[in-house]
Amino acid sequence: MFVVENSFAPSDALANIRGSAIRDLLKLTEQPDVLSLAGGLPATELIPAERISESAARISADPQALQYTVSAGVYSCREAVARYLGADDPSGVLLTHGSQQALFLLAHALVNPGDLVIVDDPVYVGALQVFQSVRARVRALPITPSGVDVETLREMLEAGERPRMVHTVSNFHNPAGVTVTAATRIELARLADRYGFIVVEDDPYGRLRFSGADVEPIAAHSDRVVRLGSASKILAPALRVGWMSGPSGVIEMVELLRQGADLCGSTFSQLMVAELLDDSAWLDTHVAHVQTEYRLRATALTSALECELGGRIQFSQPEGGMFCWARIPGVDTSRLLADAVTAGVAFVPGAAFGVEADFSECLRLSFSALPPDGLHEAVRRLAIALESSSN
Amino acid sequence: MFVVENSFAPSDALANIRGSAIRDLLKLTEQPDVLSLAGGLPATELIPAERISESAARISADPQALQYTVSAGVYSCREAVARYLGADDPSGVLLTHGSQQALFLLAHALVNPGDLVIVDDPVYVGALQVFQSVRARVRALPITPSGVDVETLREMLEAGERPRMVHTVSNFHNPAGVTVTAATRIELARLADRYGFIVVEDDPYGRLRFSGADVEPIAAHSDRVVRLGSASKILAPALRVGWMSGPSGVIEMVELLRQGADLCGSTFSQLMVAELLDDSAWLDTHVAHVQTEYRLRATALTSALECELGGRIQFSQPEGGMFCWARIPGVDTSRLLADAVTAGVAFVPGAAFGVEADFSECLRLSFSALPPDGLHEAVRRLAIALESSSN
Repeated sequence: MFVVENSFAPSDALANIRGSAIRDLLKLTEQPDVLSLAGGLPATELIPAERISESAARISADPQALQYTVSAGVYSCREAVARYLGADDPSGVLLTHGSQQALFLLAHALVNPGDLVIVDDPVYVGALQVFQSVRARVRALPITPSGVDVETLREMLEAGERPRMVHTVSNFHNPAGVTVTAATRIELARLADRYGFIVVEDDPYGRLRFSGADVEPIAAHSDRVVRLGSASKILAPALRVGWMSGPSGVIEMVELLRQGADLCGSTFSQLMVAELLDDSAWLDTHVAHVQTEYRLRATALTSALECELGGRIQFSQPEGGMFCWARIPGVDTSRLLADAVTAGVAFVPGAAFGVEADFSECLRLSFSALPPDGLHEAVRRLAIALESSSN
Repeated sequence: MFVVENSFAPSDALANIRGSAIRDLLKLTEQPDVLSLAGGLPATELIPAERISESAARISADPQALQYTVSAGVYSCREAVARYLGADDPSGVLLTHGSQQALFLLAHALVNPGDLVIVDDPVYVGALQVFQSVRARVRALPITPSGVDVETLREMLEAGERPRMVHTVSNFHNPAGVTVTAATRIELARLADRYGFIVVEDDPYGRLRFSGADVEPIAAHSDRVVRLGSASKILAPALRVGWMSGPSGVIEMVELLRQGADLCGSTFSQLMVAELLDDSAWLDTHVAHVQTEYRLRATALTSALECELGGRIQFSQPEGGMFCWARIPGVDTSRLLADAVTAGVAFVPGAAFGVEADFSECLRLSFSALPPDGLHEAVRRLAIALESSSN
């Protein structure tokens, strides 16, 4: 017999991908009695289901809305997204099946195996998986309170390194919570122009600011920026509508790759998103409501951390997004997790987000998915877990 | 200045993809006065919009249906697809964003650059693009009236070639119209078991049989088969729900890759598909209606070809699906297309589907998207184009 024993062996690209510890963990912590600070889901009860249902019923009654569309997406939705982003030109916008697909297609369209790609440390795990799947040479720079470590990046560039891409989550970083400062954005854009790399400005959370002032996007400072966004956090994840905006040359390349990747997005979903983004009076009210709720939740979480764990835990006050990044000096949070689940609370240990640096004392706490009293109870349980794990 | 001039250069993977001439052509022929036999769209007016709209309104009213789901898909929909396929085990089913995505993920999970992949000639262009995007070594075997050319394949295998995958559209081939015979399926499965390759049984059209008898799937004869299917042709393309069924080891690998590719599908869409597939009384009636209409259309097309072009054109009578593959000896159909569009009709020239063989005298005619009188008029215009191009 000639049977190739490893006929189901993974490709080198797949073998290079680290599974998402978060998603694996989520499976373990999906017990009804565990309060989860681990997930990355927006608040289910704040999804505007009534408005979406009304729109879904009306739009899908037209069979044309249920047909295939073109790979770049329904034109009226590209226009609506361009308006939403304050841009004029829909030809610079391509609609994707969530912004994760935008990142995946972008990397596959532009990055060769061995190309250098710079990410933050801690990293958005979905970005790490993408760059691993194209077998890039990934370097992770420890994120600073100003965002991307542009000092170290500049030193690398001056030493002759030539990255293909630099990826960051620009607003309310997942998991680090940091927002890239204006000065760092300008410097990153300047370096991109000078050294010819592409900045991937991954921005799913920007609209979820509940305190402080918006910062101009990195894309405002350079033409070498591809900006990613999504309807998932402001409307609903199941619409699966994300987008990229950037140079039309890049958009056209991604469009070609997308033909083979999945042909096109959902006409139906894109028409719904176009309608909801264009209804700016409704959208502003809805987003303001989500912001208010998230502010309450963020405050509830950090107040509880102060109250229950003050002195033992370090964190900064979130200004938006869904995550609080914290550190408990002297505690290995991966080991703490077992006690935490026993105590009825889950979080994601920092090690899940580390590439080169050590985040074993850190943890990511999501405040979006639980109401204030749930958050307080979750932190109370975390304190119990910490107590029992210290014994 | 250090600017890398080609900072927007495509990756080697992207540079290796041939654009879909069909999609490019479709853009050119999208004129209101052109009757198109070129598209690959199901009949818009046969999409069950009323039923889908009712389901969409009800399902999306629950915000839980608008949340993220797991990468393999909503479990109840995996169960419904397993039942639809006559299988017991939903763990062997993974839901994708259309079956094109299933093929893309499968190839990226299992094929390395340089691996040999066998496709049909003429080829389903979406499959060629996928295998080009993983930089496979693609060999195309001229399709026979029995489907995959298993004789030549066996000779290649005996000569020592070891393909990683063999891809075919098993029922009502796009574009060749052929259905793989039972004997060829059995032989292909035997060769897969003996030589350790994976058969990709791409089957979006199987349910659209309007004449003749169903043939048992290739997957019935070997465990080395990954079968792809879709709700696009029986329900609606914009649902973007496809699936793969196969060995659980393969499913798990694709699930990991999918985390990075786009996280997950649409909970909402998958819940709708689960409901519609499970409503088998309604589904059977709906599909029977589509089959009847497609039979009328296929007959209208071939009658018109006989009537208007008899003696000049060769084709076989479709038994299902959406396409009629034809040949006009002595005519270069790529050159004919310009005259055809002038005469108000579009088709896809055979050359668009050729990999190694010469299909310059062939053309793909879709009968799904026009009613019978439209098809007759389209063929009349084709005859005019042929007349004027002969002059």
